[in-house]
Amino acid sequence: MAVERLVVIGGDAAGMSAASQARRLKGPGELGIVAFERGHFASYSACGIPYWVGGDVEGPEALVARTPEEHRARSIDLRTRTEVTEIDVAGQRVRALDRDSGETYWTGFDKLVVATGARPVRPAIPGIDAPGVHGVQTLDDGRALLDSLEGTAGRRAVVVGAGYIGVEMAEALLNRGFEVTVLNRGAQPMATLDPDMGRLVHTAMDGLGITTVNGAAVTRVLTGDDGRVSAVATADASYPADVVVLGIGVEPETALARAAGLPTGPNGGLLTDLSMRVRGHGNIWAGGDCVEVLDLVAGHTRHIALGTHANKHGQIIGSNAAGGYGTFPGVVGTAVSKVCDLEIGRTGLREKDASAVGLRYVTATIESTGRAGYYPGARAMTVKMLAEYRTGRLLGVQIVGREGAAKRIDVAAVALTARMTVEEMTALDLGYAPPFSPVWDPVLVAARRTVAVLRRAGTA
Amino acid sequence: MAVERLVVIGGDAAGMSAASQARRLKGPGELGIVAFERGHFASYSACGIPYWVGGDVEGPEALVARTPEEHRARSIDLRTRTEVTEIDVAGQRVRALDRDSGETYWTGFDKLVVATGARPVRPAIPGIDAPGVHGVQTLDDGRALLDSLEGTAGRRAVVVGAGYIGVEMAEALLNRGFEVTVLNRGAQPMATLDPDMGRLVHTAMDGLGITTVNGAAVTRVLTGDDGRVSAVATADASYPADVVVLGIGVEPETALARAAGLPTGPNGGLLTDLSMRVRGHGNIWAGGDCVEVLDLVAGHTRHIALGTHANKHGQIIGSNAAGGYGTFPGVVGTAVSKVCDLEIGRTGLREKDASAVGLRYVTATIESTGRAGYYPGARAMTVKMLAEYRTGRLLGVQIVGREGAAKRIDVAAVALTARMTVEEMTALDLGYAPPFSPVWDPVLVAARRTVAVLRRAGTA
Repeated sequence: MAVERLVVIGGDAAGMSAASQARRLKGPGELGIVAFERGHFASYSACGIPYWVGGDVEGPEALVARTPEEHRARSIDLRTRTEVTEIDVAGQRVRALDRDSGETYWTGFDKLVVATGARPVRPAIPGIDAPGVHGVQTLDDGRALLDSLEGTAGRRAVVVGAGYIGVEMAEALLNRGFEVTVLNRGAQPMATLDPDMGRLVHTAMDGLGITTVNGAAVTRVLTGDDGRVSAVATADASYPADVVVLGIGVEPETALARAAGLPTGPNGGLLTDLSMRVRGHGNIWAGGDCVEVLDLVAGHTRHIALGTHANKHGQIIGSNAAGGYGTFPGVVGTAVSKVCDLEIGRTGLREKDASAVGLRYVTATIESTGRAGYYPGARAMTVKMLAEYRTGRLLGVQIVGREGAAKRIDVAAVALTARMTVEEMTALDLGYAPPFSPVWDPVLVAARRTVAVLRRAGTA
Repeated sequence: MAVERLVVIGGDAAGMSAASQARRLKGPGELGIVAFERGHFASYSACGIPYWVGGDVEGPEALVARTPEEHRARSIDLRTRTEVTEIDVAGQRVRALDRDSGETYWTGFDKLVVATGARPVRPAIPGIDAPGVHGVQTLDDGRALLDSLEGTAGRRAVVVGAGYIGVEMAEALLNRGFEVTVLNRGAQPMATLDPDMGRLVHTAMDGLGITTVNGAAVTRVLTGDDGRVSAVATADASYPADVVVLGIGVEPETALARAAGLPTGPNGGLLTDLSMRVRGHGNIWAGGDCVEVLDLVAGHTRHIALGTHANKHGQIIGSNAAGGYGTFPGVVGTAVSKVCDLEIGRTGLREKDASAVGLRYVTATIESTGRAGYYPGARAMTVKMLAEYRTGRLLGVQIVGREGAAKRIDVAAVALTARMTVEEMTALDLGYAPPFSPVWDPVLVAARRTVAVLRRAGTA
């Protein structure tokens, strides 16, 4: 019997998790594994780049979970600096381009994993490619940005975008001693939160010394005599900048897959079934930042680029591709982040998400603390909760606060997964001791308040 | 119509929560509320006493959530220093003793709340009542201990018991500059953990400079010429002590209720229904440290003295007593604690609990970190998980680690409540960002390992 061949396109979290898991289940005598990665690095934490840039983490080696050599030592034929330029689905082969030698060649597969990731959104505005303007998607990007920071005497940084990447990069640049201005197209930073919660983030960022300008759509990047960025312009104003970081978000990188006829969804990501198999294709799987995932609360697919999903996808794909079994049921939309000591957590639906899928809801917002009020270091925390009208089912939670705020969201993530009502949540047996929580955990306080609002609404 | 009267026995968490909630729902024109408290204080956080003794918290005022005067201002007739000495169930009245004047009197009730709390276990050994030997149940106890610490020139403290109170008091005394020895009757400290996890606590306490002696049952307290404690003796050895703190645990305070014929369970606590009504009594409720609660995982009642349960009970009792509605479904046995920077969390069943109720189980133990491994401050965390054989249902989790270890237990608490399997848990959408979690949260790593163990066991 010929040895089966598994080909993996993309050597980061999803791709290499798939390769590693498949290798765990099947030895090289049963399954050959070839993985193509167009960059220098594989298996790295893109999520760690802001902390490398900010100086918290030595990089880039620390961000590499497993080196190419380590993968190869486990009989995974990882080819870095090699880009797949075509997928021949019918012919069960991919065409690869060696980016150093310029050579191209075809490689056959029995099973294929598409893990091409996401690419940062780069607005098509004049000057966007000027030196000093940086994305932060790959380790190579991180290195280029650090070189740029060291190469400028100026201390003014502009971050375009106020989502996770934007606020994390704002912290990083602040830590590097820059004066940071965040230009945010929306009404409040952190559009993954409702505006009332985003406003809290805005206020806290002000307090940290980060200037956030809302309603600021960038129209042009201006350059100086040396050709390097000098300012960023919006319709209303111009913001001097010695360095610019783009943190606008990412979109699924699916050009290759689409060219091969693989199906994509309304958000541009590949569509898979519960086993992460590409819909309609028995021997092709896809996972990580290039796919859409089922939002279990909203009931539709969504594009969420997050390393933790990518790792899960890879693990499941690797199991299935090697004859094991695994499924990915979907997500509830949990995300955590921080800006200096400000912590942000969110899961489930925002108000506008709920409305968009036809859910009627109530909300409650409470203030509490992460520790007993009398315990040293107790800091305020705001929790907003959404529950479905009539059923009282939890729909979403957002938390903004200091120590202990972000990961409290996990309680809500599990409750969402279990489709609990807020009334049921009021009885949750959460850990209590003065250094860790008030006697009513903030999540329980929010649940109680939401129940009260449901009752006043004549429901529940 | 005559105004109904609600009488509350015990003015701490459960009792005063009940009184306050009932008052919220019914004004003094509809419901009279009389609350008896034998001590000086009401509505205080007994859980905060170790932090007051340790100097983290100013006390005792900071530990009082609401003063007697504040209760009275809300039309709750709170009588402190007044002890109820008899309940006449048939006659619907209680006899009260004014501890200052020595007078006794009867007060009638339409509805009664029994919230008599718990009392510390005091082993009946010679010398136990010597000056310098302290319990830490009430604010008065805390004040007496602090006076004792200031009144001794010696720096040797012995803590009897290595459960939550014991280890928290060990930290407090260490913070006060004492040399601390913990005498533990069991094989490992923290008997609420399995011994293998307790061993980790032992090792960590050693590292913190706290000496723990296991298998050390105290037989005698020795005193000096001045009559004050001088040492604590076990069968094998004698431990010099300038001060001794008893942290052996508590038992439900139900003498009064039992004398009145109210039913108690196998653990000595009062038995209630889901609305916290005492079984067989339509107009008597009980809650807090004097009742048994249903352990939803074990399927039987248990005595758990914890302020967070007491507050929930009180809130539910107050609602029901005032014509509202609320139920307490039970607990899953969550508890968190710390010793200096060591954090401990547990929920659900230990191995011996599972065996005791006829559950066959597998276990898995993993090591991970509370942050991404490369993120500064990432510290090791050990997670042990139990799942039922065949069904794969989660049965319990124990966590020992540093920052971020304790409250991670909440994820397991919600999963237990929702009766999730460990396989389902592997897909949980928990918050991920490098400062808060590795890409696989430690709880997810433990769930994956437990699934693997179940598979090897030929089940799941």
